[in-house]
Amino acid sequence: MIIETLSTFPHMYDSVMGSSMMRIAQEKGILDFTAYDLRDWTHDRHRTTDDDPFGGGCGLIMKCEPIFEAYEDLCGLPHPQPPAAGGEPKTGPAPQHADAPAPKVVFLSPCGRTLDEELVRELAHEERLLFICGHYEGIDERVYALADYEVSLGDYVLTSGELASMVIIDAVVRKLDGVLGARGGADDESFAHSLLEYPQYTRPADFRGQEVPPVLLSGDHGAVARWRRERALERTARLRPDLIERADAAGELDDADWGFLKSCDEAADRPR
Amino acid sequence: MIIETLSTFPHMYDSVMGSSMMRIAQEKGILDFTAYDLRDWTHDRHRTTDDDPFGGGCGLIMKCEPIFEAYEDLCGLPHPQPPAAGGEPKTGPAPQHADAPAPKVVFLSPCGRTLDEELVRELAHEERLLFICGHYEGIDERVYALADYEVSLGDYVLTSGELASMVIIDAVVRKLDGVLGARGGADDESFAHSLLEYPQYTRPADFRGQEVPPVLLSGDHGAVARWRRERALERTARLRPDLIERADAAGELDDADWGFLKSCDEAADRPR
Repeated sequence: MIIETLSTFPHMYDSVMGSSMMRIAQEKGILDFTAYDLRDWTHDRHRTTDDDPFGGGCGLIMKCEPIFEAYEDLCGLPHPQPPAAGGEPKTGPAPQHADAPAPKVVFLSPCGRTLDEELVRELAHEERLLFICGHYEGIDERVYALADYEVSLGDYVLTSGELASMVIIDAVVRKLDGVLGARGGADDESFAHSLLEYPQYTRPADFRGQEVPPVLLSGDHGAVARWRRERALERTARLRPDLIERADAAGELDDADWGFLKSCDEAADRPR
Repeated sequence: MIIETLSTFPHMYDSVMGSSMMRIAQEKGILDFTAYDLRDWTHDRHRTTDDDPFGGGCGLIMKCEPIFEAYEDLCGLPHPQPPAAGGEPKTGPAPQHADAPAPKVVFLSPCGRTLDEELVRELAHEERLLFICGHYEGIDERVYALADYEVSLGDYVLTSGELASMVIIDAVVRKLDGVLGARGGADDESFAHSLLEYPQYTRPADFRGQEVPPVLLSGDHGAVARWRRERALERTARLRPDLIERADAAGELDDADWGFLKSCDEAADRPR
């Protein structure tokens, strides 16, 4: 999968994309990542990517021209209008994939679809993604004509569009075949199967007097599986009852699950 | 504000915490940030921080001992039990704030409270936060005894707890007095006032035939303010009707707002 980003702080990606799973995905050739510097598509001495808003107000708005010209170069498309004269030479990597299929363009925006596992899976099926990341107050509205996806991480405001894009990239890359290897990670987790995770324990069995639940030391695989399922059900019903409804709608709950949930409700004196 | 993190990839923070707003907040002395390496609190030659889960299963679980011992050192507390013999010398920064008030401890967990502006503001009022970041399958359940906050970014799975913590740190730091300076950023944005942002435009007024709405060029401040308010209302009602309800509950909508929303509904033939 090809993932590219376009922003004014391309080096913000360095230490995240160079560590851990992201590094491994690139070393295995599963992820081809490039962070482009939007300033390489400016034409003034100050390499200006933003300007005052029309109509007044605080903050600076990201300009149309550098973003459209960058997009066209990344896609190998001609510019409808010649770039302004006096351009500075480019300093970052030249477009790497001008011959590849055009990227699907992702914007981070509070107006976008809230990121969830369904959207992550949808993005993971794309061949090539381009994240256009703003800072400060916003992006000229006309730029959103390029958008294939507008994504919001949640109901909170971030300064750094780069950071928001890294979250989406992490969530997407871990879905790609071969990235998490044989650890079976991506499919055995919270949200992948609708329920929250059961509690986990590792050595020592007694840590400062806090003991591991005995069933986990019993060697009885059936009992362990039952205990884990019930802990996941109990925790999900208590903290995220909406996920129980979703699991039910997806046909993931069987009679034993419902029997257990009813017994929890009776113990807590709740009707179900 | 003191923010510390404890994880096995402390260098993942380098390029994000060293750029843009995060760098400025540290230069101004508003943010005091340190990323600690959890491996500095291990005592074996391989600096092991995780181990197989009791009861079987894929993945590795983060162990109790290094996390508790690190927490105690960061707080200047004695260890209830002496650390195991044969410890390697520490390689990272020594605890910086053992004399400061104990940190509030934040875990990233799908079981946690979903991050939103209210939680961000709550965290921004703390004097000192410590993020404990897992990787892989999870953390030994007994470690959560340290938790003051359990936070979820949303209904998606990330590999990197470091990255999730950076998102929270970005959202929190931008709320601190003096960080965004006089730009008035943090208070004039989506979610701060319940509504989504109105569209923004900057030069040129005509980009490849796409023109800026004429009202923004009119110089009529009242008309600009009305246009922006109506665009924010229209967009919020269309994309996030739940935020209209929240704004209403907070008493942020006046008669003119309701009149405009009714006219939108009539135009779209929707009852309100």
